Amino acid sequence: MRKVVLGLGISLDGYIARADGAVDFLFMPKDYSMGPFFATIDKMGGGDFSGSKMKNYVFSHSQSPGERGGVTFVNESPKPFIEKLRKQPGKNIWLMGGGELARDFLKDDVVDELYIGIVPILIGEGRPLFPSGFPQREFALLENKTFSKGLIALKYARTRKKPKRKV
Amino acid sequence: MRKVVLGLGISLDGYIARADGAVDFLFMPKDYSMGPFFATIDKMGGGDFSGSKMKNYVFSHSQSPGERGGVTFVNESPKPFIEKLRKQPGKNIWLMGGGELARDFLKDDVVDELYIGIVPILIGEGRPLFPSGFPQREFALLENKTFSKGLIALKYARTRKKPKRKV
Repeated sequence: MRKVVLGLGISLDGYIARADGAVDFLFMPKDYSMGPFFATIDKMGGGDFSGSKMKNYVFSHSQSPGERGGVTFVNESPKPFIEKLRKQPGKNIWLMGGGELARDFLKDDVVDELYIGIVPILIGEGRPLFPSGFPQREFALLENKTFSKGLIALKYARTRKKPKRKV
Repeated sequence: MRKVVLGLGISLDGYIARADGAVDFLFMPKDYSMGPFFATIDKMGGGDFSGSKMKNYVFSHSQSPGERGGVTFVNESPKPFIEKLRKQPGKNIWLMGGGELARDFLKDDVVDELYIGIVPILIGEGRPLFPSGFPQREFALLENKTFSKGLIALKYARTRKKPKRKV
């Protein structure tokens, strides 16, 4: 099954960006590479990746749905959208957005893995990766690696109770 | 110099407790021990440790200052209080409180080290370790260890620019 991977860099106090959207506090040390991660995915939700070769979906309440400028705008709940996407062949789906988007995905319980890079800085305020307001979600730690300049990279997998499913 | 160590376990979304104060989601695996940490400290701020042999200070706006029931209530800003405490002989000072207490200590920039245990669960809402509203504080990663059941234990040291000081 294609997995939805919420993957982002955050400050030690859990922000993906400053209040004004700046991400100057994030960094990528020389010994860290996103290559292995990129090799596992071919879809993204959110962000501006109009130049990339991946298919990009942008969740938006203000933009009308449809494909324009290299991205596909989406205005529906995560669950039905992801269910459709999972049925199409492809690799994993990168959910590249925190805040309300992450919360909506967690509410719908469609986040399968977390790839989180934590930089060693408290920025004091900003846009949280995990804003409050979703039900409890358990995970299992898959990987914990330390990189230079104090970056740590964590991978978690959602541990759902086995659903009753007809095979 | 005696260091102030902010040391707490948190959920993956940064909470030290649920909204009602429950910490049922936290756990301490068998291969993890707080012994080495306890050996480095002899003071605490916050929490209920009336049975311990450590000297305990409780920051409170509602209780009048003074020693009662095995603890010493404090009603002043962190900085002058910690400056006095640092002048007394002793080991490190454990700041065992998140939320407003941690924010006040970070505002006054008297937090020297962070010892953070992260359990692999998103609880969705609760009492944050680092509530917003303090200036940016840079740290260096000292240690990153993985324990069973997905607990990771992180140690950071504050990296302040060298102060102009008279020696």
